[in-house]
Amino acid sequence: MEFPSLLIQDAVNAFASLPGIGKKTALRMVIHFLQTEPSKVEQFAEAIVKMRKEIKHCKVCHNIADTDVCSICANPRRDHGIVCIVENFRDIISIENTRHFQGVYHVLEGLISPIDGVGPEKLNIASLEDRLLQGNVQEVIMALNPTIDGDTTIFYLSKIIGKYPIKITTIARGIAFGGELEFVDDITLARSIAARLPYEKYLNGNS
Amino acid sequence: MEFPSLLIQDAVNAFASLPGIGKKTALRMVIHFLQTEPSKVEQFAEAIVKMRKEIKHCKVCHNIADTDVCSICANPRRDHGIVCIVENFRDIISIENTRHFQGVYHVLEGLISPIDGVGPEKLNIASLEDRLLQGNVQEVIMALNPTIDGDTTIFYLSKIIGKYPIKITTIARGIAFGGELEFVDDITLARSIAARLPYEKYLNGNS
Repeated sequence: MEFPSLLIQDAVNAFASLPGIGKKTALRMVIHFLQTEPSKVEQFAEAIVKMRKEIKHCKVCHNIADTDVCSICANPRRDHGIVCIVENFRDIISIENTRHFQGVYHVLEGLISPIDGVGPEKLNIASLEDRLLQGNVQEVIMALNPTIDGDTTIFYLSKIIGKYPIKITTIARGIAFGGELEFVDDITLARSIAARLPYEKYLNGNS
Repeated sequence: MEFPSLLIQDAVNAFASLPGIGKKTALRMVIHFLQTEPSKVEQFAEAIVKMRKEIKHCKVCHNIADTDVCSICANPRRDHGIVCIVENFRDIISIENTRHFQGVYHVLEGLISPIDGVGPEKLNIASLEDRLLQGNVQEVIMALNPTIDGDTTIFYLSKIIGKYPIKITTIARGIAFGGELEFVDDITLARSIAARLPYEKYLNGNS
């Protein structure tokens, strides 16, 4: 696609560098901005630059935050005895949206991946052990993706956490709500049979 | 969706204000920026702000341009005797991409629309007449959308241009390439039969 203006071309290329945005969508966005007040366009740009410059990582759990300690870790009403381990802060947003978890988090910022050359030393594991050493943690929930890397990381972490008198749990694997047995893969189906629940628990899934 | 950070919230809202972008896609973009160098994020923001601030409209044809006269109007190898009338600069990009038009353009910046209260005085029609008065134009091509507003505008313009010894043409309406007769609307099909072409012309569509 050719543009009659280098300014437009640069702006379209800027948008097209975003994930999932092609040239046509980028052009639609640029046209939207051409029809927007210049002051509003500056507000847009400022929100993004400010976010990138001023964003911090929580000193305790490595979640993204506006302050040194994130709003979850700073909240006294959360249960600081239950730590949910996640890969990245997106998982925190997903879990928070369920409104069914009242504990705190620990963000690894990755998973152990021998193929990609990511060893345990690249993850936030040392700071996790520091938290465990303080002795307040009763349970660690592994909320990692059910992939080879996820399972490797869970295995590695379980060896470390196993040194402490702390309960280790993983989020349930199984058939998703609305899922169909016919199309579920073998491993998931096999695991969901092996990990079958008493019916009363099924009815009371939230407790 | 709730976010652990106001900075993130603001940035997500900024992206979600773009056409066709929901909260989830906006979040994906924000995460992309969190993983990008701050200097690159500034470059992105600058490209958009600069584009909005410095973009000009061509004094001759009202196309968007970096300079007072756009690159098409300033090009001596274009045929300045053929003026293609379009609704907005997006149509210029579409037509330029075909690489089959060597004339120049005139951007109306809208269509006459009694329902939306857009009268001829809101469009770039006075400047079009100025161009016609100079006496260099031999043909005006109406490349407007085949809607009621488009046809109204063509009718209005044809009355004005009719005062000059200038050929008036419209782009061909008909069945699109790859289109199926069965699913074409009645008006298009009727018009494409009425405006049927000798077979030699069909083979030689570009000439």
